[in-house]
Amino acid sequence: MTNQQYLLAARPLGLPKKSDWQFRESPVPEPGDGEFLVKVLYISLDPAMRGWMNAARSYIEPVAIGAVMRAGAVGEVVTSNHPEFKVGEHVTGMFGVQRYAISNSQGVIKIASSLAPLPLYLSTLGMPGMTAYFGLLEIGQPKESDTVVVSGAAGAVGSLVGQIAKIKGCRVVGIAGGEKKCALLVDDLGFDAAIDYKSQDVQKSLQKECPGGVDIYFDNVGGDILDAVLSRINRGARIPICGAISQYNNTTGINGPKNYLSLLINRARMEGFVVFDFASRYKEAAKEMGAWLAQGKLKSKEHIVEGIETFPEALLMLFSGENFGKLIIKTV
Amino acid sequence: MTNQQYLLAARPLGLPKKSDWQFRESPVPEPGDGEFLVKVLYISLDPAMRGWMNAARSYIEPVAIGAVMRAGAVGEVVTSNHPEFKVGEHVTGMFGVQRYAISNSQGVIKIASSLAPLPLYLSTLGMPGMTAYFGLLEIGQPKESDTVVVSGAAGAVGSLVGQIAKIKGCRVVGIAGGEKKCALLVDDLGFDAAIDYKSQDVQKSLQKECPGGVDIYFDNVGGDILDAVLSRINRGARIPICGAISQYNNTTGINGPKNYLSLLINRARMEGFVVFDFASRYKEAAKEMGAWLAQGKLKSKEHIVEGIETFPEALLMLFSGENFGKLIIKTV
Repeated sequence: MTNQQYLLAARPLGLPKKSDWQFRESPVPEPGDGEFLVKVLYISLDPAMRGWMNAARSYIEPVAIGAVMRAGAVGEVVTSNHPEFKVGEHVTGMFGVQRYAISNSQGVIKIASSLAPLPLYLSTLGMPGMTAYFGLLEIGQPKESDTVVVSGAAGAVGSLVGQIAKIKGCRVVGIAGGEKKCALLVDDLGFDAAIDYKSQDVQKSLQKECPGGVDIYFDNVGGDILDAVLSRINRGARIPICGAISQYNNTTGINGPKNYLSLLINRARMEGFVVFDFASRYKEAAKEMGAWLAQGKLKSKEHIVEGIETFPEALLMLFSGENFGKLIIKTV
Repeated sequence: MTNQQYLLAARPLGLPKKSDWQFRESPVPEPGDGEFLVKVLYISLDPAMRGWMNAARSYIEPVAIGAVMRAGAVGEVVTSNHPEFKVGEHVTGMFGVQRYAISNSQGVIKIASSLAPLPLYLSTLGMPGMTAYFGLLEIGQPKESDTVVVSGAAGAVGSLVGQIAKIKGCRVVGIAGGEKKCALLVDDLGFDAAIDYKSQDVQKSLQKECPGGVDIYFDNVGGDILDAVLSRINRGARIPICGAISQYNNTTGINGPKNYLSLLINRARMEGFVVFDFASRYKEAAKEMGAWLAQGKLKSKEHIVEGIETFPEALLMLFSGENFGKLIIKTV
């Protein structure tokens, strides 16, 4: 048995290059006392990973140079010296971009493949689901008939934000890249409208699709789109700041929202959040979203790429916008 | 009796120039039925006036070209056809930059010169006082021992924000331009520290003066100072956006805060407000601030310039930062 791992070799400038990674093969380690060995089956690819690769202080420690790249994952316990984790059980945790991981159980949650397909624990029932749920409901505070705009709408988080907002009785407009994605948002996920930022003028389209203005803007992208939406917000609007994928690979720094004074004019707020703060309520959210899935009110979309060796290129799909739904690597 | 008025002649590009104003002399008008004539004694000069001169949509209509420049003022009723406003009474309202104004009582409040000197009704007991009070207490939500940073700290609003924060038990750091202003903030108004943005590195000074980070940043200026403070905020920080005086005269657009993702990392929020929304509570605020003034806990600072003809130049003092406290024109 051989382990395969992707280590962070260098801090990228702009988009991560092949040379920013080191691929290492080594013997699979033995778990010590109170530890268990996980065979990693699915690896989550998230825009936030780009931030973890920078040296700067953030809400979480940077990944050290030479360390296994941090990533959420789903796996199966294959050897165990831990009383509570048995061989054959499925688990999710930050196992990293590797085929085998040793764990002492910290931050690891048992999951049931009988309740939902395993990849769902990295999408709707995992971090993106929790992010969409708490970011929209707690930070966005949707009220019935609010107009909700979400960017990165075809991504793991955005696709759920829009659907949850629909469940809450809002008018939902998604912003995504490409005609096909936009069609899917409306036809498959029930969004009221979608704006293709690659071929449409976002500002003008917002005027058309949100004639009554914007009450909530769930921002995954930052940059020009944030500015365009800021110019259309209503009085008392809420802007949960979930991410800024358009800015993560800038080599000349972040572009700040030049329309931020719209917050003043409109008595509106822009508020950041980090999903980990809601950890004590994950169960409650998973239960409610599980019910919505079962009732067909919520669709979970996964975009699965095969083979751990695809990692350096698969990660870039997030930034070119090639995925629809949650991007996941199936290791085998 | 001759009226003297400043009308908006052109929409300024950058700092308002002399040619953006028209000075007009005309006979004093006669009040009609249900109206009264006010002799304007004190005119308020506010950074917000710069925004009202632009054509863009804002929280209030732009001043029309050819109209009397909008301004808060204090005056005396000299002729009255209104049953509730008697000759000799003092009033405050948006009387504009002129020596005489006709009013139908809308938005006009009676004030008592026996309770406080008239200029105070344009500072601590007027709009700047209300802005500081509600912006800090309602949007900023200070808790004892919070670290509060305020920019434009020697201005009408900033000087009150800092003092109210001290009353609430906070550590207060003011940012202002010039050694003299900074010394006054600490020595006269009781701020814990002051940073001179004209001669000091704001970023480094914040590190020194706010070793425990920043819990509330009351922003009057925007620009680089907003970015510097964003890089020092604590988890859950609140940033009331009151204004952005550093940006009002930009001819190439507003600079957005490039460090805004600090809101995400720190689960913090940036929130705009407009003082008019708190109109129903002005009395309550004036009562509390009046008591603080009487107890010597709060000092009201007015910077009074004489003569309505000084208006075009006096307004520029706000942008060069020459005033300490509330800038007011005494018309006579």
